[in-house]
Amino acid sequence: MIDFAALRAELPVLERRAYLNAGTQGPLPRRAVAAARAELEAELAEGRATHAHFERIASLAERLRTAVAPLLGCDAAEVAVTRSTTDGINTVLGTLELGPDDEVLTSDEEHPGLVAPLAAARLRAGCALRVVPFDRVVAEVGERTSLVACSHVSWVSGRVVDAAALAAAARAAGAQVLLDGAQGLGAIRLDVRALGCDFYAAPGQKWLCGPDGSGFLYVRGELAERLTPSWPSFVCLSDPSRPEELPLLPGAARFDQGVVARAQAAGSLGALETLAEAGWGGVVERGPALAAELAAELAARGEQVAPRGASTLVSWTADDAGAEVERLAGEGYVVRDLPGRGLVRASVGAWVSEDEIERLVELVAAR
Amino acid sequence: MIDFAALRAELPVLERRAYLNAGTQGPLPRRAVAAARAELEAELAEGRATHAHFERIASLAERLRTAVAPLLGCDAAEVAVTRSTTDGINTVLGTLELGPDDEVLTSDEEHPGLVAPLAAARLRAGCALRVVPFDRVVAEVGERTSLVACSHVSWVSGRVVDAAALAAAARAAGAQVLLDGAQGLGAIRLDVRALGCDFYAAPGQKWLCGPDGSGFLYVRGELAERLTPSWPSFVCLSDPSRPEELPLLPGAARFDQGVVARAQAAGSLGALETLAEAGWGGVVERGPALAAELAAELAARGEQVAPRGASTLVSWTADDAGAEVERLAGEGYVVRDLPGRGLVRASVGAWVSEDEIERLVELVAAR
Repeated sequence: MIDFAALRAELPVLERRAYLNAGTQGPLPRRAVAAARAELEAELAEGRATHAHFERIASLAERLRTAVAPLLGCDAAEVAVTRSTTDGINTVLGTLELGPDDEVLTSDEEHPGLVAPLAAARLRAGCALRVVPFDRVVAEVGERTSLVACSHVSWVSGRVVDAAALAAAARAAGAQVLLDGAQGLGAIRLDVRALGCDFYAAPGQKWLCGPDGSGFLYVRGELAERLTPSWPSFVCLSDPSRPEELPLLPGAARFDQGVVARAQAAGSLGALETLAEAGWGGVVERGPALAAELAAELAARGEQVAPRGASTLVSWTADDAGAEVERLAGEGYVVRDLPGRGLVRASVGAWVSEDEIERLVELVAAR
Repeated sequence: MIDFAALRAELPVLERRAYLNAGTQGPLPRRAVAAARAELEAELAEGRATHAHFERIASLAERLRTAVAPLLGCDAAEVAVTRSTTDGINTVLGTLELGPDDEVLTSDEEHPGLVAPLAAARLRAGCALRVVPFDRVVAEVGERTSLVACSHVSWVSGRVVDAAALAAAARAAGAQVLLDGAQGLGAIRLDVRALGCDFYAAPGQKWLCGPDGSGFLYVRGELAERLTPSWPSFVCLSDPSRPEELPLLPGAARFDQGVVARAQAAGSLGALETLAEAGWGGVVERGPALAAELAAELAARGEQVAPRGASTLVSWTADDAGAEVERLAGEGYVVRDLPGRGLVRASVGAWVSEDEIERLVELVAAR
């Protein structure tokens, strides 16, 4: 199912550390860096302000869309190329015409990268913002709700929202659904159509192991063409000769976030190729399976593991989570704490070995 | 004033071509690529999800702000790190609370990267958009005008707006001024305080010779702290532990566009160092002086040079400007055409030689 040895060999950081923090940023594959370098060298020698340069950019953007679409479970035309999860979130909040009569429903386990845009939207649009416990989101969709904006997979606990139920509740209420997919895309098997969401915002630099400043936004089918970007650039235009009329590209490309930098796009493609060669099926099976194993073993040792779902994240209680992260770093384990939550979190990617899991359990239990 | 030979040696594309299109994208310096590569190699080996990684990012962002501020003529606290000129423009249009009673005044020589955001703002906010000839902008500021958004230096003709007069007219009308500095920053001597504008949006990849996807936004002094970003991310927060309250960083940093990618920030700094070593004073003297020389020589040969100002751009009429650009490319000269305007445009950077100017004049006159 997965070429494990080949995958690890492509990720040099694993030679130095047990890397369990792809939930923050993934391990960078050799090929991502080689591809970015090749692009920079070409730009250096050939110059950038040529037709060939802009054709290269356009081609890389299309290849990216095409490579990411099957991982989301959608068509390439439904994928916008962004620079972060937050870009995708701001894209959605900027384009929806929220007002004082609208309520946005969210959860109490959201990342600042979603919460800050929601807070700004509330100030700007005067909409109401209702925060409910993560496991109550589906039940709390109400008549006033216009938008549900919450994590697909909680970055705090690794719990997974019941997206299909959420979509049904939202549909009944006439609301739209924006999922923050920061811990979804590339981590677990994904099918945005089955999830039923309208928008899915995801990063490139976490579970896809791509460069900093990369991301993607799924916009459901026919929806994109009913929406106007609030942050357009000339790459969103179908005809840049009459920008005053704002003629927009078909599909989600109208939400692309400016010119894709060649080195970055090539780096993203290199990372995606590395994971594709290992086998995506295996990648999205192995991570969650290994995470479940880690959670079970920690619990068996008496650790308080936060309630979780079928995800790649495992969080457990520590008296001083920050100090515990430092202690584990000293042992060669990269994990993180969740400030204010008293939790240490391990992100279990397909590249993690059984031995690393065993040793982490021993280390945690030995504190 | 300028170490010309050393500067040219740092720009390998000049070995192959006469590069006169920094108005689209600047020639990339060796050091920019070397710095980006070094950062990628470090990320590859060390991994990215560590304190050291995020400290490196924060330090690079601050170094960038500090390096660019003197080129704008402002304090580092007045500089936001963006990813393009258009990012800066969208930042301003998103944060100003324009409505149906507001008029935005702009010119007929604006780039799609400004026009598309203005068109979207009009749709969104219902504001009026008035387009006047570039040389009429100052005179046309009226009582209804809330914002003037136009080029500092026209990308079409190279004319320069009388920014001080514009600021005075705007002040009298109670309007704000956003200058599109795509052809200003790094090209000509700049002092945003003397220009009197409220906002100055500029790119990193043109006259600063930085990587794709880099840019800067000047926000005048005390203004930033009265404004709320419409596109916030967690890097805009002074306290990421309470994002729901949107506690914003002081100064223009609240408008930063997400996490700065290390390779990109280091590349930007490498490019700035290259130009600083050549001598900024010389760079912003030599380009405009050489451009004036080109314009005069073309005119002396009977070419119709578009009315221009003290800038680095020279545009002249051609029956088929696209074909003329192709012909000059065949002779090793990188220039561009301006679609729909019947103009060929040369961007004259400090790295262009006298010989290249002479030969370009001969080539143009020989058609």
